[in-house]
Amino acid sequence: MTFFDKIRAKWSQGKFLCVGLDTDINKLPNRITIPADSSGTAIVAYNKAIVDAVADTVCAFKPNIAFYEAIGAEGFSALEETIDYIKVIYPDVAVILDCKRGDIGNTNAGYITAAFDLLNADAVTVSPYLGQEAMQPFLDRKDKGIFVLCRTSNTGADEFQDLPVVIGMGGRLTAPLYQIVAAKVAQSWNKNGNCGLVIGATAPEAFERVRHNVPDAEDIPILIPGIGAQGGSLKESVLAARDSRNQGVIVNISREIIYASAGEDFAQAARAVALARSDEIRNILKAA
Amino acid sequence: MTFFDKIRAKWSQGKFLCVGLDTDINKLPNRITIPADSSGTAIVAYNKAIVDAVADTVCAFKPNIAFYEAIGAEGFSALEETIDYIKVIYPDVAVILDCKRGDIGNTNAGYITAAFDLLNADAVTVSPYLGQEAMQPFLDRKDKGIFVLCRTSNTGADEFQDLPVVIGMGGRLTAPLYQIVAAKVAQSWNKNGNCGLVIGATAPEAFERVRHNVPDAEDIPILIPGIGAQGGSLKESVLAARDSRNQGVIVNISREIIYASAGEDFAQAARAVALARSDEIRNILKAA
Repeated sequence: MTFFDKIRAKWSQGKFLCVGLDTDINKLPNRITIPADSSGTAIVAYNKAIVDAVADTVCAFKPNIAFYEAIGAEGFSALEETIDYIKVIYPDVAVILDCKRGDIGNTNAGYITAAFDLLNADAVTVSPYLGQEAMQPFLDRKDKGIFVLCRTSNTGADEFQDLPVVIGMGGRLTAPLYQIVAAKVAQSWNKNGNCGLVIGATAPEAFERVRHNVPDAEDIPILIPGIGAQGGSLKESVLAARDSRNQGVIVNISREIIYASAGEDFAQAARAVALARSDEIRNILKAA
Repeated sequence: MTFFDKIRAKWSQGKFLCVGLDTDINKLPNRITIPADSSGTAIVAYNKAIVDAVADTVCAFKPNIAFYEAIGAEGFSALEETIDYIKVIYPDVAVILDCKRGDIGNTNAGYITAAFDLLNADAVTVSPYLGQEAMQPFLDRKDKGIFVLCRTSNTGADEFQDLPVVIGMGGRLTAPLYQIVAAKVAQSWNKNGNCGLVIGATAPEAFERVRHNVPDAEDIPILIPGIGAQGGSLKESVLAARDSRNQGVIVNISREIIYASAGEDFAQAARAVALARSDEIRNILKAA
């Protein structure tokens, strides 16, 4: 079963939410009793509680590896254990490793071994800057999902991503760089049907441009960060980003869910927010 | 002492070579007796032998973290131990962690902790795609070197990096994307004087464009991959990339040196190539 088979099965159940397991050791509720012989143990315990609380509301989990690298070798093991837990207990829920990797071809092999063979992730995020030929070792993994950064959610993302690239008429016809990235991914990188795009909720015009102006991108899956703490509008984003089947979106929410409460009730609080957001997305798509 | 202080001290001694510690567990000479109770131990032993053999010929070492991630948590520890060894035994030689990281601001904090606080690297490579505001936490580390990917050495790098971006005259004046990246870095990202650019030896015209067409980039340090296994010309690159003081280049060579021999003499063979290449660069600059 490929990554996108898993995701499509969840979409057909009305599940479009992805919970970002961006677990920061400095933000774990300090009043909670966690078997904390070590940072890694504490993070894994926290993650398992969150995963158990929200797994039935999501299509995917998305740990960002930066939060795990912050505690070194122990963090790699904690990430491994977290993903193992999801794979064993909730095998129908996909794991997207948010790592934004990208190097030359022979070097990417190391990242691929780490992400897919050691950590056993179903999908990764990658950076487009080095181009398709460098990223081909990722694209060759047909069973995995490859989400290419297109228009990111951070302030300042426009610095390069919105630059006007000449596409014709002696320079008078241009498109923003992110649209060229979307076009290359949809028309060339996606030969194996295993690509998606990352487009942040903070740039809703990017969804329109990609869905309506980029040939072959009408139905490419879009991973949407930037909801919640970053301030993007859920309704506007989902409506603009949905595909022709009223699906096609994976809406990531991290801090708003995993830190819903700083108290002992963190898991119940996470569940309440996840249920509400999951329902909200489903209802937006139903009404559309 | 900042990263660039260390590098400039080496440049003044005529040392411009950087050896890439891209140590692949599958490529270690199998006839060599290495205390190999584990992959990590074998990699560290190999690295120490290479470091000891070439340290007096280089300005920096550049491990690419992908090769270490390929063996998981153990790889992180092996990288930590390798860098520790360099820091203790050769404190005047800088360590550039090649990790090509780049995420949104609050997430980069994890990568920064890993690279600078846990691994104790003097410099990193980063990807420009998310823009300056996202990368500011890296740029704020005044003592560290931040090398921004500009024009990479891989085939296919032109897919996005060479795209014509409109810079004036209603679209008739354009510059390749990598030149815009160089301009932003030189003029805005480099407020702390701690930035460099990565420009591959396989695109020698990029050195000319950056050195001569980008204001404030005349003297920004350039890290040059792509010599040796990737086929770039050393002489052409160094001549085009040098700064106004006949310095300003860090020439990385990896496979040609660390795998100079597959036999027991791997360290001596590495030293012979490193000495030859180091002399070659110095002589090119002297004759210029």
